[in-house]
Amino acid sequence: MFYAKSIAVVGASTDPTKLGHIILKNLIEGGFKGEIYPINPKADEILGKKAYKSLLDIEGDVDLAVIVVPAKFVPSVLEDAGKKGIRNVVIITGGFREIGGEGEKLENELLKIAKKYGIRIIGPNCQGINNTHNNMCASWPLITKKGKIAIISQSGTVAAAFADWLETEGFGFSCLVSLGNKADVDEVDLIDFFSKDENTDVISIYIEGVKDGRAFMDVAKKCKKPIVVLKPGVTERGKKAVESHTKSMAGRDEVFEAACKQSGILRARDFEEFYDFSKALAYLPKLSGNRVMIATSSGGAAILAIDVLERHGLNVPYTPNELKEKLREVTPAHAILENPIDLTGDANAEIYKNVIKLSWDYFDAFLVIFGDPIEGACEVIEQCWKDKPVVVCYTGGGDVERKEREKMQLKGIPVFPTPERAAKALVSLWRWYCE
Amino acid sequence: MFYAKSIAVVGASTDPTKLGHIILKNLIEGGFKGEIYPINPKADEILGKKAYKSLLDIEGDVDLAVIVVPAKFVPSVLEDAGKKGIRNVVIITGGFREIGGEGEKLENELLKIAKKYGIRIIGPNCQGINNTHNNMCASWPLITKKGKIAIISQSGTVAAAFADWLETEGFGFSCLVSLGNKADVDEVDLIDFFSKDENTDVISIYIEGVKDGRAFMDVAKKCKKPIVVLKPGVTERGKKAVESHTKSMAGRDEVFEAACKQSGILRARDFEEFYDFSKALAYLPKLSGNRVMIATSSGGAAILAIDVLERHGLNVPYTPNELKEKLREVTPAHAILENPIDLTGDANAEIYKNVIKLSWDYFDAFLVIFGDPIEGACEVIEQCWKDKPVVVCYTGGGDVERKEREKMQLKGIPVFPTPERAAKALVSLWRWYCE
Repeated sequence: MFYAKSIAVVGASTDPTKLGHIILKNLIEGGFKGEIYPINPKADEILGKKAYKSLLDIEGDVDLAVIVVPAKFVPSVLEDAGKKGIRNVVIITGGFREIGGEGEKLENELLKIAKKYGIRIIGPNCQGINNTHNNMCASWPLITKKGKIAIISQSGTVAAAFADWLETEGFGFSCLVSLGNKADVDEVDLIDFFSKDENTDVISIYIEGVKDGRAFMDVAKKCKKPIVVLKPGVTERGKKAVESHTKSMAGRDEVFEAACKQSGILRARDFEEFYDFSKALAYLPKLSGNRVMIATSSGGAAILAIDVLERHGLNVPYTPNELKEKLREVTPAHAILENPIDLTGDANAEIYKNVIKLSWDYFDAFLVIFGDPIEGACEVIEQCWKDKPVVVCYTGGGDVERKEREKMQLKGIPVFPTPERAAKALVSLWRWYCE
Repeated sequence: MFYAKSIAVVGASTDPTKLGHIILKNLIEGGFKGEIYPINPKADEILGKKAYKSLLDIEGDVDLAVIVVPAKFVPSVLEDAGKKGIRNVVIITGGFREIGGEGEKLENELLKIAKKYGIRIIGPNCQGINNTHNNMCASWPLITKKGKIAIISQSGTVAAAFADWLETEGFGFSCLVSLGNKADVDEVDLIDFFSKDENTDVISIYIEGVKDGRAFMDVAKKCKKPIVVLKPGVTERGKKAVESHTKSMAGRDEVFEAACKQSGILRARDFEEFYDFSKALAYLPKLSGNRVMIATSSGGAAILAIDVLERHGLNVPYTPNELKEKLREVTPAHAILENPIDLTGDANAEIYKNVIKLSWDYFDAFLVIFGDPIEGACEVIEQCWKDKPVVVCYTGGGDVERKEREKMQLKGIPVFPTPERAAKALVSLWRWYCE
């Protein structure tokens, strides 16, 4: 499915506004290395590729078929796929179980055909899949930036927003899977797959309902990689909306919460936590203790962070006297050395560098807050040892902040826009590695 | 103080890296309309302005003196100011109460002089003041964009970040006041002032400790404008950090929380809430009931919003049948009309426009989520009536999102980046107008 070497796009279109065109185009422009077969009974060639009337007309093997034809034609396409020996299918088309009645019958028909031939289906009613490490964007928009996070989502928009943020910050993702109706392949199959995928370090899942709670917990427990989950439907009205949206059952939230705790899943409370936790776990080193040092140019920003850290079991211990004496030699006279180490507005990159270097052995993690337009922030963080997490918040630095943030992100260093979000990112490491 | 017509900068410098130069420059480049007097005993002219040796050498009246000289010289400057008849002073210089010992003595000396002459002091140890409506940036960086929010802050970085976000989004602020040590002027004085300032609609305060709780509650109760407060120091370790930072007493958080409730202050839980609440209250119309309609192209994003709304007492009622029938005529066949009105990925600006228009009379507020690259989103929102709040979330729309968001912000329409933040913005209106 994800490492296919040949792909057919059934419903490939010559009309640039149609999804059947866009997906074909994204596969080609995304640099897919294998064979691409457009299927369209009325065209000879689309986007420079020879078009076929049916899957059965293709001579070579086909690993994956992406289906974009109207719902009523999908069963016969699936029959063709079965006969052709295709075992992996992504169905983009909507109009199945999510609309009830006839759609539900049609979806059951698909499942029967799939069972007959041993076909695995992602979808229907989904936005496709994108494995950047296989240059395979069978989805939209075209994103090619390779990263370490696998995104699995029951909402196209949540996946798109997540991917867009990752791309904008230069991180990219490993795979993106739009679950759609989960007629066949579901979150359990995908956790299992990505737990073994060597290009994936973190599995991030937006889900509205779990089909099989027991299997979900089992596969999550077995998975050695962090799983971050965003699951709404906490309130009564939210649960009802979940039913209308994906016909999922949100279930009792306390039960899901307890299941997450038991199986080591990190549950995010909102979209930003979902994003920040994933980014932190994918791009920061292992945390091995709860002693956090805060180096800052802003006392206020540090206090906002401390409240979050302390509430979640992390510790901001006072600076040992021995270290304080060393720090005094490299910091401005009015710096506060108690931890937070408040370098005040006079801070510069050199001072940060010296402070972190001298403090390295005394703490398990560093929260570095640049609260002024500090040039060279990127160099400070780059030169840190790589065996402990250094979480960066850059805020209140105007244009210098924007420049330094971009530099850090280009080097794969996560930067958080507020002290609280940086602190929560560190909390996610604490939960995963230590709690 | 804030509407001064003539300003002296004591410690104005010819060295472009010095604050005494930067502040003078910002006053000039910010377009201050009144007289500006640089005070520097060694220069004849700075930045094209005639320089004076002392405040006493100036012939005309001076409404405000901004003092940037080293701490030990500040008392004598203050004496001069008193003799010259200057009644408003901003002291940027640090090295007073915040460093203890000698600094504390020096600050007490200032207070004595101020009392003798009836001088009001902002600071010391602060980043100055900026009243955009008086083109008076006696602070840094230079920000001139006029807005409706007054920012009062005990942290330079929190104020700078807040102002930078407002400027980046095109909203600006009315005034920014850096409190510093609050030797004289404090939050109580400033709430009183801004409650009467016609250019200010919302007062946003970052504060670490309140000097006089009773007076704070009284002035807040009297104030007819929304006051949004961010106050850290909730945890024990946070309280200790507050003491090291500004020598304030954070106090028991439950007491402060109760005081906020009693006096109608909106307390933000983190920096983003602080910003979002302020923006929503300043730039969205009055809310007069709890019935929220959600129009969305993304079911998932809507559910994330619903959980937030319901938890905070807002209601997402089912669509009345009468309205549902009307909506059926203007929406795609597979749209879900239950509220959230889920227009699915096929949504376009025209559909949004019709849906909001038909639904207008049935609800008290609208949460409009653009969860795909929807062109013309700005026009949709622009054409809404102005008598009810329409809160916009744009997410997952890539480059189209960025373009439409900028267009909306140029027109003063607040846009929120996640469904939860949009929902919380609506909650702030609910708390202020209805609860």
